[in-house]
Amino acid sequence: MKRRSVAILAATGAVGQRFIQLLEGHPWFDIAVLAASERSAGKKYRDACLWRLETEMPKEIGEMTVVNTDLKSVKEAGDVDLVFSALPGDIAGPIEETFAAEFPVISKAAAHRMDEDVPLLIPEVNPEQLELIPVQKRRRSWSGFISTDPNCSTIQLAITLKPLMRFGLRRVIVVTMQALSGAGYPGVPSLDIIDNIIPYIAKEEEKIETETKKILGTFDGERVRPANIAISASCNRVDVKDGHLEAVCVDLEDKPSVEEVKEAFRSFIGEPQRLKLPMAPERPIIVREEIDRPQPRLDRDAGRGMSITVGRVRSDPVMSIKYLCLGHNTIRGAAGAGILSAELMAAKGYI
Amino acid sequence: MKRRSVAILAATGAVGQRFIQLLEGHPWFDIAVLAASERSAGKKYRDACLWRLETEMPKEIGEMTVVNTDLKSVKEAGDVDLVFSALPGDIAGPIEETFAAEFPVISKAAAHRMDEDVPLLIPEVNPEQLELIPVQKRRRSWSGFISTDPNCSTIQLAITLKPLMRFGLRRVIVVTMQALSGAGYPGVPSLDIIDNIIPYIAKEEEKIETETKKILGTFDGERVRPANIAISASCNRVDVKDGHLEAVCVDLEDKPSVEEVKEAFRSFIGEPQRLKLPMAPERPIIVREEIDRPQPRLDRDAGRGMSITVGRVRSDPVMSIKYLCLGHNTIRGAAGAGILSAELMAAKGYI
Amino acid sequence: MKRRSVAILAATGAVGQRFIQLLEGHPWFDIAVLAASERSAGKKYRDACLWRLETEMPKEIGEMTVVNTDLKSVKEAGDVDLVFSALPGDIAGPIEETFAAEFPVISKAAAHRMDEDVPLLIPEVNPEQLELIPVQKRRRSWSGFISTDPNCSTIQLAITLKPLMRFGLRRVIVVTMQALSGAGYPGVPSLDIIDNIIPYIAKEEEKIETETKKILGTFDGERVRPANIAISASCNRVDVKDGHLEAVCVDLEDKPSVEEVKEAFRSFIGEPQRLKLPMAPERPIIVREEIDRPQPRLDRDAGRGMSITVGRVRSDPVMSIKYLCLGHNTIRGAAGAGILSAELMAAKGYI
Amino acid sequence: MKRRSVAILAATGAVGQRFIQLLEGHPWFDIAVLAASERSAGKKYRDACLWRLETEMPKEIGEMTVVNTDLKSVKEAGDVDLVFSALPGDIAGPIEETFAAEFPVISKAAAHRMDEDVPLLIPEVNPEQLELIPVQKRRRSWSGFISTDPNCSTIQLAITLKPLMRFGLRRVIVVTMQALSGAGYPGVPSLDIIDNIIPYIAKEEEKIETETKKILGTFDGERVRPANIAISASCNRVDVKDGHLEAVCVDLEDKPSVEEVKEAFRSFIGEPQRLKLPMAPERPIIVREEIDRPQPRLDRDAGRGMSITVGRVRSDPVMSIKYLCLGHNTIRGAAGAGILSAELMAAKGYI
Repeated sequence: MKRRSVAILAATGAVGQRFIQLLEGHPWFDIAVLAASERSAGKKYRDACLWRLETEMPKEIGEMTVVNTDLKSVKEAGDVDLVFSALPGDIAGPIEETFAAEFPVISKAAAHRMDEDVPLLIPEVNPEQLELIPVQKRRRSWSGFISTDPNCSTIQLAITLKPLMRFGLRRVIVVTMQALSGAGYPGVPSLDIIDNIIPYIAKEEEKIETETKKILGTFDGERVRPANIAISASCNRVDVKDGHLEAVCVDLEDKPSVEEVKEAFRSFIGEPQRLKLPMAPERPIIVREEIDRPQPRLDRDAGRGMSITVGRVRSDPVMSIKYLCLGHNTIRGAAGAGILSAELMAAKGYI
Repeated sequence: MKRRSVAILAATGAVGQRFIQLLEGHPWFDIAVLAASERSAGKKYRDACLWRLETEMPKEIGEMTVVNTDLKSVKEAGDVDLVFSALPGDIAGPIEETFAAEFPVISKAAAHRMDEDVPLLIPEVNPEQLELIPVQKRRRSWSGFISTDPNCSTIQLAITLKPLMRFGLRRVIVVTMQALSGAGYPGVPSLDIIDNIIPYIAKEEEKIETETKKILGTFDGERVRPANIAISASCNRVDVKDGHLEAVCVDLEDKPSVEEVKEAFRSFIGEPQRLKLPMAPERPIIVREEIDRPQPRLDRDAGRGMSITVGRVRSDPVMSIKYLCLGHNTIRGAAGAGILSAELMAAKGYI
Repeated sequence: MKRRSVAILAATGAVGQRFIQLLEGHPWFDIAVLAASERSAGKKYRDACLWRLETEMPKEIGEMTVVNTDLKSVKEAGDVDLVFSALPGDIAGPIEETFAAEFPVISKAAAHRMDEDVPLLIPEVNPEQLELIPVQKRRRSWSGFISTDPNCSTIQLAITLKPLMRFGLRRVIVVTMQALSGAGYPGVPSLDIIDNIIPYIAKEEEKIETETKKILGTFDGERVRPANIAISASCNRVDVKDGHLEAVCVDLEDKPSVEEVKEAFRSFIGEPQRLKLPMAPERPIIVREEIDRPQPRLDRDAGRGMSITVGRVRSDPVMSIKYLCLGHNTIRGAAGAGILSAELMAAKGYI
Repeated sequence: MKRRSVAILAATGAVGQRFIQLLEGHPWFDIAVLAASERSAGKKYRDACLWRLETEMPKEIGEMTVVNTDLKSVKEAGDVDLVFSALPGDIAGPIEETFAAEFPVISKAAAHRMDEDVPLLIPEVNPEQLELIPVQKRRRSWSGFISTDPNCSTIQLAITLKPLMRFGLRRVIVVTMQALSGAGYPGVPSLDIIDNIIPYIAKEEEKIETETKKILGTFDGERVRPANIAISASCNRVDVKDGHLEAVCVDLEDKPSVEEVKEAFRSFIGEPQRLKLPMAPERPIIVREEIDRPQPRLDRDAGRGMSITVGRVRSDPVMSIKYLCLGHNTIRGAAGAGILSAELMAAKGYI
């Protein structure tokens, strides 16, 4: 595989830092340009960034000069094959469009997720949405394109729902207990969360309820028809650093047994596993049998943060089946998702 | 109201301490006897008890001598009209029976909750279950009796379900986020819960699923017919000191509007309010309109810990309505529940 | 005592909220004006303020209209006898001066603490510094004046050092473990403090090291000569909501016994106790004998948040004596300190 | 280096699990026997052990059968060259002696630390104490021996004090903020530590004050003369998972500059570094220049948990110099310490 040079937009933020951490030593991708806001532009990355990760900032990254987040500055700073966008949702929309005119943009922002001609990609779940890319390029007359990754709490849910589709998935009720890092930095004030739970995350429930249907929808060659599933989400913020835990109830028409459901989870693999993509976990879903798992601190790093851990699969007195799922929200739910998407595009010839 | 003397079983434990705290200055009840295990018997309470509450131990209680938890020791220690039992579930059963042969026993333990002839009482919800007391006394030939309070996470759920019964309540899915104090002391090791959630609490889901049906059941003069409701519970332990938060989805046949449901919550009162019982909160259910409430630390002390706070009442894409409820698990969910039950019995002439 | 009307500057902030909470039902002071930044001016207090306290916002306060923080707006809003300033340190200086030209200003800000003619007051410790007020008014030609309360971590330390002065206090080493609320709101990001300690608080060590000497200094009728004590402070932020804990080592020339030191703590009272001021705790210092106290959650509310709890007084292998002290940083360390100062001024005729 | 077979006593406990984790893939040592209490004996390790670490239990370890902690059972279970003891302090004494009659015992327990003929070893600090081994064997007529590792909070302090000895170290005042894992499992109840600090750890202050003098003492060929240093320790438990933070003040006769002290820390290396022992960190002490480091969560894993991170080195108004130090209490402070000690013994021919 030929190496590709990448630019990271919003490189100094929490997700930007994860991109840098996860791309260190990547076999296909090299970081060529780090872009951030005007306040950071012109500074060395080590001076512009309040590094929050437990591993050390890679030395050579620290020495790079941050550039402003505009097409001209990024192009002047280096030859770029690919752009990762970790821009905040409220400003991402138009900026990503200017970049997409010339470059593939893989975005973590919500701005374009529900656009009709933009993939909302989870490589194991719906690789066929990549076929929206030529549609989009044609329609928008771009030489680049935008592909999006879903919201963090949606990704892990959708990965576990995908293998349940075969059983006639009709209704889903999910209650989330989401980690602090999902709110970015500075994010949640400590005074709000110590000895407490905040039972509300702005726009999160709507994202889960709408994005999931597009992710699990069917692609007809031109557009995605949303899956015919009713979804209810209740989202809570808890005092956990990383790792969203979700309690899920599903109604399955075919009434499979608990063991059939577990087997569907366990045997689930997708294109990333078949193609042995570098970021792909061996198993997208790990099923644990202990009575008290998954737990955020013990399971969030499973599959180097890319596996979803499922536990307590059991029959439900109201719906058919209930279970818990847990994923690392800034790896599988953010930067790792973007990298895996890029890997799939590279393997399939889209970039 | 004539004053009554009470004994507390398991007086040195977490719930026992709450009983003592809440009974300080009570207008009807005086603490006459403190009973605990053999290890504590013979010691002054202040030496036998590792007091864990933020308020100081009442001075005169500290000077009382703890007696062993058997009928003879308790009777020798003082004239007792009434027994509060905070015994651990695994030993409560037979001990409570020996006491019930002579005394009214108001129990926080699970042992007898599902007995056919034992009330499972929430004074605002099902005061008619007190009529099981004469049935029980007759059947068991006791001069005393046992009445039980439900499990902490069940009480707050059932209080909010009661006013929904009129709308044709058929199905309930609840996911709980429960506080540390619900596990007693020493309870949950700090190493297990820091930066973590434990998605399992032994027997808790079963308790919610079975007890709620008895609480909301109908009494036919001889026994309680369980309510015809399907209930699904998923229980999680979170790093919060006090206050269980529950995310609830309900299916209501009559499809009331969100405003009708809120009004049903707001206007709900019961016998304790009509009788102005000392421990009764002015409003059993407080409905908050803020987007991010209820929160454990901000709402657990509402109504001196006896009100349930409901928030985020909204329509649900899968069921009819969803909402959150929060209650103080060691006050409304434990010691306060027992005291309110005793007050109702006193007001109605059962003790 | 005639009632006085007070204005609160920065009324919507964390300390401002505490002022409102503590002044509810105060026998001498009525809240007449609430001032805050332009963003809040013109709004009802309930709409301008994100209320963070566990008790409810007083209803009539919520209905008051917030005014801008300038002399003219405050004067137009009501007759004011006295101004409490909870302004941020970086803007407090000049604003407080404009108010002091006409009103007594009791300030929680650092700006004027070390001014030669401004009291740095702890009512139990150095009431004689009130005599700086006529000096200040004369020198600055003001009809009002500024009096300051020390930094929160300094107040509790100084209260415990005062009774040790008689033993020839020469050297103090203190290591603090400070609560989140000391940083205001939003303050410390939760991602920084979960499973962590931050061993640095900007300017805090300097404040402890310099303010303490002025507080314990001697007043010669014109100015305060700093106490001749060497002080070393190391300040840490920990994941505790309220209550600063401090580990203190002191060198005492007279080498008193542990019991003599404890007795000095226990018997310490000051003007607020002699005058029975409303906010004064019965005992400024509570000495606990348990091996593991004081603890923030168990002891911060002692004396309604106005007592300092001391524990583990023991002899030290390097200095003479070591002990721990704990105080509620937003009550005794902030709003309660201001109110007690105002009460002392009222009782002594300064306002 | 020839491979050696090791037995681990108390293999199912928290420190035992760390030994297993850190020995996985070790180039010199193979785990041959896992011993634990009678309750575990005869079970597979995976069934006997509640594994608490974030990494998975090594598969082949899980299949091993646990044996009882007595000499006979361990000898029957396998050929053993070396015993690591993670026994609780109250039972370790006599059990370790029975093993030492035949095997080298490297102990994490306090029982024999202060024995005159037993090394209290930190490989970088006092490798000469290994020469106590022949003394001990002769005196006790053992073919094996006991060597001990200091208490966790002492190890990291002593490593930072060692390079200060050259400046005439006379007095040390240390205040610790210690992690939960230092108390073992189940250890500290979560109800005691949420929103709280416990300012007392049984025997910890005495251990720091006495062990440090032996560690830094001088060996005269027959015994260790304690260093002539006055040490004062105040120990606190905080809500942090791993990593003890210590605020240290030292008095140094030679009055070195801050830069000289930093350079002494930075340039400090010992035998493990010279011998390139497998467990040895490249640098025993890492000096950070950021204003707010070290922090437990960010620095505890430095040098794979074996480096001590020092920060905020500054001059002190009372003593000479103050600084903070941080170490991973269950790696450098426990299992990693034992393994490094064993490596040094292997390299020097003691085992």
